[in-house]
Amino acid sequence: MKLAAMDKAELRRVNQEAASQYEDFKALHVSLNMARGKPCAKQLDLALGVLEALKARSEFANSNGDDSRNYGIWNGLPEMREIFSGMMGLPADLIILGNNSSLQMMFDCISQGMTHGFGGCKPWGKQEHVKFLCPVPGYDRHFAVTEYFGVEMIPVPMLKTGPDMDLIERLVEKDESIKGCWCVPKYSNPTGVTYSDETVRRFAALKPAAKDFRIMWDNAYCVHDLTDTPDTLLNLYEECLKQGTEDNVLFFASTSKISFPGAGVAALGASARNIVDLKKRFTTQTIGPDKLNQLRHILFLHDLDGVYSLMQGHRKILEPKFRIVEEALERELGDLGVARWSHPNGGYFVNLDVMNGCAKRVVELCRNAGVVLTDAGATFPYGADPNDSNIRIAPSFPPEEELSQAMHLLCICVTLAASEKLLSERF
Amino acid sequence: MKLAAMDKAELRRVNQEAASQYEDFKALHVSLNMARGKPCAKQLDLALGVLEALKARSEFANSNGDDSRNYGIWNGLPEMREIFSGMMGLPADLIILGNNSSLQMMFDCISQGMTHGFGGCKPWGKQEHVKFLCPVPGYDRHFAVTEYFGVEMIPVPMLKTGPDMDLIERLVEKDESIKGCWCVPKYSNPTGVTYSDETVRRFAALKPAAKDFRIMWDNAYCVHDLTDTPDTLLNLYEECLKQGTEDNVLFFASTSKISFPGAGVAALGASARNIVDLKKRFTTQTIGPDKLNQLRHILFLHDLDGVYSLMQGHRKILEPKFRIVEEALERELGDLGVARWSHPNGGYFVNLDVMNGCAKRVVELCRNAGVVLTDAGATFPYGADPNDSNIRIAPSFPPEEELSQAMHLLCICVTLAASEKLLSERF
Repeated sequence: MKLAAMDKAELRRVNQEAASQYEDFKALHVSLNMARGKPCAKQLDLALGVLEALKARSEFANSNGDDSRNYGIWNGLPEMREIFSGMMGLPADLIILGNNSSLQMMFDCISQGMTHGFGGCKPWGKQEHVKFLCPVPGYDRHFAVTEYFGVEMIPVPMLKTGPDMDLIERLVEKDESIKGCWCVPKYSNPTGVTYSDETVRRFAALKPAAKDFRIMWDNAYCVHDLTDTPDTLLNLYEECLKQGTEDNVLFFASTSKISFPGAGVAALGASARNIVDLKKRFTTQTIGPDKLNQLRHILFLHDLDGVYSLMQGHRKILEPKFRIVEEALERELGDLGVARWSHPNGGYFVNLDVMNGCAKRVVELCRNAGVVLTDAGATFPYGADPNDSNIRIAPSFPPEEELSQAMHLLCICVTLAASEKLLSERF
Repeated sequence: MKLAAMDKAELRRVNQEAASQYEDFKALHVSLNMARGKPCAKQLDLALGVLEALKARSEFANSNGDDSRNYGIWNGLPEMREIFSGMMGLPADLIILGNNSSLQMMFDCISQGMTHGFGGCKPWGKQEHVKFLCPVPGYDRHFAVTEYFGVEMIPVPMLKTGPDMDLIERLVEKDESIKGCWCVPKYSNPTGVTYSDETVRRFAALKPAAKDFRIMWDNAYCVHDLTDTPDTLLNLYEECLKQGTEDNVLFFASTSKISFPGAGVAALGASARNIVDLKKRFTTQTIGPDKLNQLRHILFLHDLDGVYSLMQGHRKILEPKFRIVEEALERELGDLGVARWSHPNGGYFVNLDVMNGCAKRVVELCRNAGVVLTDAGATFPYGADPNDSNIRIAPSFPPEEELSQAMHLLCICVTLAASEKLLSERF
């Protein structure tokens, strides 16, 4: 029965039952951190072969005959760029490899916009005021980067097809101060939504008022499928080529959730003209990325097929965890009408929307009982969820048993918060 | 006999003999690149143990019990910070580890100055005009960073004791637009000079007009001794503590020339107040550096003693190469009075000053005969050597035999250029 349809006595009974279950849980003294989308140790073990690589002396010679242990090769080893080419859908010669963090490459691109600008325009830092579009809910670390540089962030609602393109077109095509848009186009963090073909085509067809507008296309979960019916994402680069808009996009990916989060390889893809802008920066900033780590990855992954086959191993570990989350939500909250959640085909998160005004309370209740979730509001610019309803569930890290336990607590807390709220508002 | 003391016939004879030797050399079709201070393959083999590390599963757990393969630990593993603490002379908790490039950390600090500023001052990018002091000859990649950000560079002559401190004090203490000074304090690139105790004390005692003045103390060669009488560098951090000026300095080092140039570990040291400024940047830019590479280094190096013992291996390979360079210069140019050169106790370069107006010509002659040296002028801001006399010799990369060959060519070219010049000017 839906909580909203209950009378006072029924609601009070639900509330008291939840409160009592909550106290029981607290008594277990659980301590579990589910705040971040961290792979678990079993997943990391899948890539141990990366560390077994590089045993033969001859392996250090790269395709130029140079020694990969030494300085040089600013854009990384061709064989690794080839693997990313397959993952990202751009030619390998438009791909620049970084070190272990695609976030760092995104940060550096925004930093580049601030101090040097793009496409021959005045640096953003010297323009009156600059803004970025932020599909919400979205990835907190993206928002932290634009906030760090003082860029005003404008939230854009996520729909089932991706961000609200009507709004994006209206804003971008008339407002020259809008310089970019954050996107996680496949299995979006945290909604799990993959942008529809039409959404991708509309991004490609954007005619921004600003000549230095750049879409930050963070394809973090491009090969991170979890079901037999994976989503497919249209190739934005190819769509842009048709429209002649390839300068409008910067593409990102990494092996952080393929090999190791802390020691993977990151990549940036860009049009030839954008690479001209960025090459000067990268070659001034460093004499080259860690090529030994690239070699390790090349020797372990071999090619795109190697990536896909490794991702099957990740799926085997992750899929049951996502099932635990969805089944717990369905079982414990399905009838109560106080929450909606996503059913993603991949990625790292389940998106939970609780009753308006309850997200902070739920996260606080969980924390007080020993389970740390992502902060409520984190999925919005400036940490401000206008409805205080969005919670990001990250099932990957805890072992299955602990995850079940944590989900049980979360459902108790959602029920407790919702019943509290209804009681205080209605009676 | 000195060329300058020769009459026309003698000089012409020297010139013709050099020209004929030059043609003989060209006929050998040598092809050798000595442009950069790259370690040779034998040096890189010394650190193969780095790659042998990380075999036992248990090794991934870091001191917090977390898995080093995963995200996190923005400032790096404590054990590696401890090793750098010994190398850099700062407490380990004031050290932030990066990825493979200390240049990148320096670039990021300058970038930080431009967009966010230091010590609560207005960002450099929003100030009228900012300047940096550049001891010359110096490191071209330092100058490239400040040039990239449009910072005006003011050359300061290098003396035997380090940069001209009278000039630095005069400039820094009166001109608020001077925001920093590049320094390679030990075995300076390219002069090989180690700053005297007095120079270090005067840096510590600087009273800059600008509250956001920062010394970029790039201690790239802190453990890179090549003789039994190594230079010693006074600890700037400790001297600053005495003066209360520790906020004026950012300290840098790396294992690029200890383990692998392309895959070492870099470090930044800073006062607690500067770390507050920088932590926000680093934690926004990345979820953490590559900790597996740090672990590899910890397991291989163990501690500071491990570093020193590894450096003995480097010395064994490098010392004979430096001897080849100095002996060739002495043997072939010693009597001619057309060049002066350094006799460094460590580092990566021999500094050669040829007759004014001859450096470009010498480098061009060498290139045309198949030996690529560092571009003449590269050791000065904007590539402009006012005397056109400075040439950086990087002996580390070529095998000894090729190095001897290259040095012979270089000496021929110095003689050829000097005799050409004297003939055209005097007779």
